[in-house]
Amino acid sequence: MSQTIQRERNSLYETVAERVSGLIERGTFGAGSRIPSVRALSRQFEVSVTTVLEAYRLLEDRGLIEARPQSGYYVRLRPLRGISEPEIRFPERKPTCVNLGDSVKMVTADMHLPAAFPFGAAAPNSDLLPISRLNRALFSVVKEDPVKSVKYDQTAGLEELRIQIARRALESGCVISPEEIITTAGCQQAVSLCLQAVCRPGDTVAVESPTFYGFLQLIEKLGLRAVEVPTYPRNGICLDELAATLDRHPVRACLVITNYQNPLGGRMPDQKKEQLVQLLSVYDIPLIEDDIYGDLGHDQDRPKTAKAFDREGNVLLCASFSKTIAPGYRVGWTAPGRYRYEVERLKFVNTIASTSLPQMAIAEFLRNGGYDHHLRRVRKVYAWQSARMAEAVMELFPEGTKVTRPTGSFVLWAEMPEYVNSLKLYERARGAGITFAPGPIFSVRQQFLNCIRLNAAYWSERIEGALATIGQLAANMKDSGSA
Amino acid sequence: MSQTIQRERNSLYETVAERVSGLIERGTFGAGSRIPSVRALSRQFEVSVTTVLEAYRLLEDRGLIEARPQSGYYVRLRPLRGISEPEIRFPERKPTCVNLGDSVKMVTADMHLPAAFPFGAAAPNSDLLPISRLNRALFSVVKEDPVKSVKYDQTAGLEELRIQIARRALESGCVISPEEIITTAGCQQAVSLCLQAVCRPGDTVAVESPTFYGFLQLIEKLGLRAVEVPTYPRNGICLDELAATLDRHPVRACLVITNYQNPLGGRMPDQKKEQLVQLLSVYDIPLIEDDIYGDLGHDQDRPKTAKAFDREGNVLLCASFSKTIAPGYRVGWTAPGRYRYEVERLKFVNTIASTSLPQMAIAEFLRNGGYDHHLRRVRKVYAWQSARMAEAVMELFPEGTKVTRPTGSFVLWAEMPEYVNSLKLYERARGAGITFAPGPIFSVRQQFLNCIRLNAAYWSERIEGALATIGQLAANMKDSGSA
Repeated sequence: MSQTIQRERNSLYETVAERVSGLIERGTFGAGSRIPSVRALSRQFEVSVTTVLEAYRLLEDRGLIEARPQSGYYVRLRPLRGISEPEIRFPERKPTCVNLGDSVKMVTADMHLPAAFPFGAAAPNSDLLPISRLNRALFSVVKEDPVKSVKYDQTAGLEELRIQIARRALESGCVISPEEIITTAGCQQAVSLCLQAVCRPGDTVAVESPTFYGFLQLIEKLGLRAVEVPTYPRNGICLDELAATLDRHPVRACLVITNYQNPLGGRMPDQKKEQLVQLLSVYDIPLIEDDIYGDLGHDQDRPKTAKAFDREGNVLLCASFSKTIAPGYRVGWTAPGRYRYEVERLKFVNTIASTSLPQMAIAEFLRNGGYDHHLRRVRKVYAWQSARMAEAVMELFPEGTKVTRPTGSFVLWAEMPEYVNSLKLYERARGAGITFAPGPIFSVRQQFLNCIRLNAAYWSERIEGALATIGQLAANMKDSGSA
Repeated sequence: MSQTIQRERNSLYETVAERVSGLIERGTFGAGSRIPSVRALSRQFEVSVTTVLEAYRLLEDRGLIEARPQSGYYVRLRPLRGISEPEIRFPERKPTCVNLGDSVKMVTADMHLPAAFPFGAAAPNSDLLPISRLNRALFSVVKEDPVKSVKYDQTAGLEELRIQIARRALESGCVISPEEIITTAGCQQAVSLCLQAVCRPGDTVAVESPTFYGFLQLIEKLGLRAVEVPTYPRNGICLDELAATLDRHPVRACLVITNYQNPLGGRMPDQKKEQLVQLLSVYDIPLIEDDIYGDLGHDQDRPKTAKAFDREGNVLLCASFSKTIAPGYRVGWTAPGRYRYEVERLKFVNTIASTSLPQMAIAEFLRNGGYDHHLRRVRKVYAWQSARMAEAVMELFPEGTKVTRPTGSFVLWAEMPEYVNSLKLYERARGAGITFAPGPIFSVRQQFLNCIRLNAAYWSERIEGALATIGQLAANMKDSGSA
């Protein structure tokens, strides 16, 4: 498509969006009401379905409308515009040995225990997992080859699965062959093996701030040091700060969640991913890229990975099916570029090989089970629930609270007023059967004391009630001090 | 039973054994012929079934008769007496950083690749795995609870499985509760987590010499040092040497395979296990005990574990179902005594949780699938094949070769004349599609150059032919030097 045509089409969908937006503002479609389907509007306005889709996406981005699963588009109850988002924070720049405190250990130990309202762990909604189709896939592969699952798998992992992964990787712009892939016990093992492949104890790893606490625990366990790099809630790690960090410190690896960052939810723009890959290539520092949430974009778009821009084998891409298909299967993978041999050897030493059974089931599901159809469904639900929960947080948490507006995945990051101590808040909420992930566990220096991460994978009135409890307990801290 | 009665009964079964032995020597039962069943002889000699069983065991031990699966007892083709067994070797006693050479890495990388005659990896015979019953167990648990397998398991592991493990542990003299058990991805992950729980990089671990190469790779990867302790092929680690080592060096942990040691096949007597536990308790050094082969005793007896003698939580027992039920399932476990909390935390950091599916299937199989019946069958086959292969080694390998006579499991350790270089032998055999495990990979200092470990899980004429090839290639080294 030439630039002119592109520009014309741009203006066309913008025009459509403006007209719909006008109808909403004038009350033709009131808050909560259903607007015309894409197909209907395409007929009414005599434009293509694609144009209407783009227009609706723009309106969703502006917070005017929302997609509801299996139902259509609705005018939002309250425009998302009203949500204030947290700003980037600048932690201290010195590398530190990671030594997570006892309260942090307690919180992460709790996180996978049953709680009445488990906002803590980033577990997907189990009602949205493709359980019956996955079980059908499992039965069919076991019946077809009853012996395969009980024998040792190759250390690299099940070939059929690696083929499916390589095929799907094309959608995120990655041209990798099955031979370049090694399957793992979830994304956590993938990141663990990659860190071990590129670092020795005492080495420094550059991480986002805030970042997934599981990575910090891993860095601690491996005897590595971490240096935190400020990260934009919407756009990912700050490249200028990263470059300054690389100039100042002997960084051995960089660990980044490029799409729908955990806990911030931000999606690094593709161009920025390319710059990140170039920057690290100049410094000859490997990038360990976690793309575990990449398939869960709310806008039905599959973002690229940084690996897509890697020409030198310098990016070690890690992902898994734990957030989309089956957390309990523990099936993840890595494409570790030029560190492939070392990663495979480490996997052998660690567990000899992966469990065959869940790999076989997932390979079959990817081949025949309608993974794309499944993704379209869950993306809509998570989009709707994340927005709904963000609104509830704004309403129910103390005045001055900010919350992220992620465009993918199902976690939110809420920044409350300074007087809120999230670790103490955690202890109080826990008594009411409510758990969440307090901010400090996402930071080497245990910053973000007034922040919490919430899981928006589930939504109900009772959950809204539990959020209100958190909000009330937090508000109580204003008067009592944080004592 | 009083000592007198015990002694009388002893002499009774010995008398029975002598009489049968006389019948064989006089040719009443010729080489290869079937001798009376236990029940028949019990009637004929008017003694109890137990007495005949003990007599037959004695004759098996002496190499005069052999049990064949589902068939009965036969006069051996050639008495096993003729087999010379390797002696204990005394390695240097200094702790060393483990740095396995490139050839060793090559060999272990090969080991899990398909080869025409894979004597290398200690994989069980896949024809002897309880495949259809296991698959039935799998289908039944998934149908009963279709959701369970796809959700995150607890970090400690599936409760139903831990209950079954705790029950079975009673048979090896171990009183442990399900809460004391943590499931893992095979025994290798169990040992890995236990080593990490008790050691820091730079610490020294006392290991048997020779010991499983996977442990040495693990020790290398974790940045630990190893000190080798001489080990008797029949009775396990030399306690005097171990005590001397503990006096001389700051050992932080001791890693021992108590039953059917890999690669030697020896079974540490129960009394010696008790002494080992006491010794380490005096020095306050944790014992990491690997019991992965414990269920595979040839004499249908379940030996005790050292853990059975542990009163202080100082023994971290590790095992798995990889050698008996399903290697591809990667289901192992550990009962880490007083290191339980630390091991669970490390497991969380490493892989969050275990895969649920294979744990569910194994728990159900242990509950209802006839594991004991299965064990009785495979024990007989491995007993017969190990003996058969030991005889073939004596016949086909160069003069002066010695070979172990394990009483459990399915690996043999052959010690050839000094002129044989097993690494060079490996390269030559590999060309003919034959792989095995050369001696040096079982030692930090890469000793045992004239030894190899063979997998006797399979037996056929073609396999005997491949052994002959190894023997011929080894014999050729005599003239050519080891160049």
